[in-house]
Amino acid sequence: MPASRLGSAGKESGLMSVLSLPRPYLLFLGDVTDLSYAKTAAGLRDWVPDQCVAEWALPGNPLRLGLPVMNPAEAARAGARALVIGAATMGGALRPAWVPALLEAMEAGLDIISGMHMPLASIPDLKSAAERLGRQLIDVRRPPADLPLGTGRKRTGKRLLTVGTDCALGKKYTALALAQAFTRAGAKATFRATGQTGILIAGGGVPMDAVVSDFLAGAAEALSPDAPADHWDIVEGQGSLFHPSYAGVSLGLLHGSQPDVLVICHEFGRKRIIGLDAHYPIPSIEEVIELNLMHARRVNPDVRVGGISLNTSKLSEDEARRAIETESRRTGLPCADPIRGGAAFDRLVEACLEPEAALAQ
Amino acid sequence: MPASRLGSAGKESGLMSVLSLPRPYLLFLGDVTDLSYAKTAAGLRDWVPDQCVAEWALPGNPLRLGLPVMNPAEAARAGARALVIGAATMGGALRPAWVPALLEAMEAGLDIISGMHMPLASIPDLKSAAERLGRQLIDVRRPPADLPLGTGRKRTGKRLLTVGTDCALGKKYTALALAQAFTRAGAKATFRATGQTGILIAGGGVPMDAVVSDFLAGAAEALSPDAPADHWDIVEGQGSLFHPSYAGVSLGLLHGSQPDVLVICHEFGRKRIIGLDAHYPIPSIEEVIELNLMHARRVNPDVRVGGISLNTSKLSEDEARRAIETESRRTGLPCADPIRGGAAFDRLVEACLEPEAALAQ
Repeated sequence: MPASRLGSAGKESGLMSVLSLPRPYLLFLGDVTDLSYAKTAAGLRDWVPDQCVAEWALPGNPLRLGLPVMNPAEAARAGARALVIGAATMGGALRPAWVPALLEAMEAGLDIISGMHMPLASIPDLKSAAERLGRQLIDVRRPPADLPLGTGRKRTGKRLLTVGTDCALGKKYTALALAQAFTRAGAKATFRATGQTGILIAGGGVPMDAVVSDFLAGAAEALSPDAPADHWDIVEGQGSLFHPSYAGVSLGLLHGSQPDVLVICHEFGRKRIIGLDAHYPIPSIEEVIELNLMHARRVNPDVRVGGISLNTSKLSEDEARRAIETESRRTGLPCADPIRGGAAFDRLVEACLEPEAALAQ
Repeated sequence: MPASRLGSAGKESGLMSVLSLPRPYLLFLGDVTDLSYAKTAAGLRDWVPDQCVAEWALPGNPLRLGLPVMNPAEAARAGARALVIGAATMGGALRPAWVPALLEAMEAGLDIISGMHMPLASIPDLKSAAERLGRQLIDVRRPPADLPLGTGRKRTGKRLLTVGTDCALGKKYTALALAQAFTRAGAKATFRATGQTGILIAGGGVPMDAVVSDFLAGAAEALSPDAPADHWDIVEGQGSLFHPSYAGVSLGLLHGSQPDVLVICHEFGRKRIIGLDAHYPIPSIEEVIELNLMHARRVNPDVRVGGISLNTSKLSEDEARRAIETESRRTGLPCADPIRGGAAFDRLVEACLEPEAALAQ
């Protein structure tokens, strides 16, 4: 899919207070040989292939993403403006073995972009090389410094927000798939990223969980500014109002996004909130709808639910179809798994775009 | 009121991840001649007089709080451990005229505590003097560096949280008054501070609005750790679930506090949310109860509403009494203005301590 279809945060939209990344990218895989540790790179390849000039791994690493293989000098000649660290490590630390490669990239004229916990500038060799060469070291986990406070002012344009019964069940993927489908359907739509992988895909955004809490709603407001009346911002959700660790982030994002449409994301069969020792049951979809609408109406009385995005990745094709049909019948809402797509997803997209379609379900 | 009645965050309770301030204080008034710009100092004098060794103003400033007047050397000899900047300026910047006084305090052996926006260490003369003399420059707006993520684990002991229909209507005052009244009634109670003035009063706490949003609930959990079964943490609320700028802070604090009892704070007659150009009506007390309980039950199914704290500061004595009675009858809950105290406040305290009392109202 061409990147333009997902829109682009930052420069072209003239956003303040939002990260804006240099693109296109050279995807760096380091010495990571397992694709599950190179999800960031794989996500970029899948969602913004025309922003991915090439891939590059350390010598001897056989991992390939299917892009042209180039070293930094070759990638720079081919138009790349930044190297993205597309590999992850346990603990989020940068491996010392990667540093010479990053220095080589800066020498070749590339900025460095990282989504790791450890700030790039905390590595003295990288910091001094960046200063000497005039390159940027960009940590997408670090929010912009000039975030405003939330104002609650009603903005022009339309907004869709993905919300969840839990963390890590498809809110980003759903928002990306909806932005793509909206554009395909002829609507103007921009994916608005709120987490590090989303920000790399969009070329900008705000890492909501790293924002100082006083500025949560203001950051979300800055992320989806005034727009033409027929333009959709498709905002990547974070956390869940029902998650005892992260609900504050979800509420700040919900208020600041002023959504016109909510899409409820759920993983079929998940029984308990992940990442906690304490047992917290997954709330019902109905509870999630009720509580999100109560809060969203505070900033937009006309907010409605577009439908349900059901993650059926653990089901067979047949089981998934049945689960989707059952959930749709039970709730009276369009339901689809965006990864499986198909007619169910088309109906979900229609319902999000056109309230009448949703009511006719 | 003796400070010990409000308990003390920090060292004695062995809290991790929570600010702990050196006390007692010398209260510094600078060149501020208007008491309304010295509210921090006045609040400390009122709530923790035995932690206030003395007051000190710049030469020629006639403002007095009624404490002994001492210079830093005298205050240090009288036991003071820190100078608190008890005066405020428009914009939160520190006045250059104050710097020599702060240097004199450090020379006399005192640490410096500030609740201003501008970090103390951003003033080179203060920074170098602190390093040279081994003094602390403590900004109570800056949260501890080692905050944990929220776990949702049920903790021992009891917790009361003040929540509001808006910001700035008495959540801190209500929590302080309840902590004092609980102690007077023979209960073990500790005031837990979540904003800068509260932190100065308590001698510790976490400035919730300055916490990185991922750690909101974790910070609130750290603030009120496991305690004996009959001990009450009285947690100072922040913001409002209905405030479009700050609701995320309120929800993180609500989840992390795991309250057993909520006290709803409201200002009589306030019609719209303050601090916004956009018009947001004040929610009804019933809406505030419903939404706070929905969220609070997620972390503590047994949570209940103790009653209503009604700010009647704009009413006459008679009007206030009628307003309090009307609100109590209308909602079926104990209602009082803690500043006015009296029998209504005693009933509110009883209802918070004893669920049976609340039901019998």
